[in-house]
Amino acid sequence: MYTVYGDLLSGNCYKIKLLLEFLQIPHQWQHVDILAGECQTVEFKQKNANGKIPLLALDNGEYLAESNAILNYLADGTDYLPTDKLQRARVLQWQFFEQYSHEPYIAVARYINKYLGLPKEREAEYHAKQTGGHKALAVMEQQLGKTPFLIEDKPTIADISLYAYTHVAHEGGFDLSDYPAINDWLKRFSQIPHYTKMSGDNG
Amino acid sequence: MYTVYGDLLSGNCYKIKLLLEFLQIPHQWQHVDILAGECQTVEFKQKNANGKIPLLALDNGEYLAESNAILNYLADGTDYLPTDKLQRARVLQWQFFEQYSHEPYIAVARYINKYLGLPKEREAEYHAKQTGGHKALAVMEQQLGKTPFLIEDKPTIADISLYAYTHVAHEGGFDLSDYPAINDWLKRFSQIPHYTKMSGDNG
Repeated sequence: MYTVYGDLLSGNCYKIKLLLEFLQIPHQWQHVDILAGECQTVEFKQKNANGKIPLLALDNGEYLAESNAILNYLADGTDYLPTDKLQRARVLQWQFFEQYSHEPYIAVARYINKYLGLPKEREAEYHAKQTGGHKALAVMEQQLGKTPFLIEDKPTIADISLYAYTHVAHEGGFDLSDYPAINDWLKRFSQIPHYTKMSGDNG
Repeated sequence: MYTVYGDLLSGNCYKIKLLLEFLQIPHQWQHVDILAGECQTVEFKQKNANGKIPLLALDNGEYLAESNAILNYLADGTDYLPTDKLQRARVLQWQFFEQYSHEPYIAVARYINKYLGLPKEREAEYHAKQTGGHKALAVMEQQLGKTPFLIEDKPTIADISLYAYTHVAHEGGFDLSDYPAINDWLKRFSQIPHYTKMSGDNG
């Protein structure tokens, strides 16, 4: 059985929880307190030298890191990852977009605001994150105005990757009311069978 | 025939050039001057709403963005992308590591230093990038001390992704002399048949 090391305060970890629930894959969830620095211990770094969660423990004793790599691994062979070569690359396009052009703005603004309480010394950084975040949201809005999910008409792990922090973007100061297609998509996504909320019991 | 929109000053674009050369795939290279903001024009954004290069134009009229998604697309079915499910996920692990934990430090420090001439107002940011960059290099050093390439003993697109900015890390102020395994790997990589230098003719 898979063990996932994660903290459900983190959207990156929530991605894995969502897919495991959608696919009803049995797993153990090992809570790692991210705010208490539990990713930075010597013991944890023996599992992942980069000191980050989520981390997937496989039955063969190996570990797999990076939320989007884990999603690709778990979704392979399921409806959440197309078999067509171009569609698979398109899924990756959205996931790399998420990690480079979305998460560093929206997730980091949320972290500064929600978990650090918007301290004075990070206010400038918080405000600077808004432009990049809205730029990312505009790219998503354009696609979701054309297709119900990011890859045509069925949910894939690309949607999971982008849902994780977009649905809590307001916690980072992002007003989503100007993004009607994103709002429709958020509703559509939350109606997928076995959908689970981010604010779970962290277990 | 593929057309690649790119600028060989950019490591992200150089990744695509390297793979196309390794695989001897015929292509047209369409130079887009990144420093002149040619990615931000209305015309270019019709091709890629996110306004970034590299961008791959396919024969069917579609475009594929994100350097690492393009690499996965082009390498599928070749020796540069394993078929084993876990090894494929491991390739992605390194590529997401590159985009989140390596590129934002090493490539951005290089950009500030080499292309902007280390202006006074970005000096603090430049120095702040050094810690994160060395952390990423240490993660690579640990792996490359154990295996000749990032995924065992043969080069994959994971190596291409990490080579692009690591081999010019000194231009971002990173002294690589404390990373013997990385240095050996850089040499090994540059001996792959059809290897091409970054400082090409941009064509």
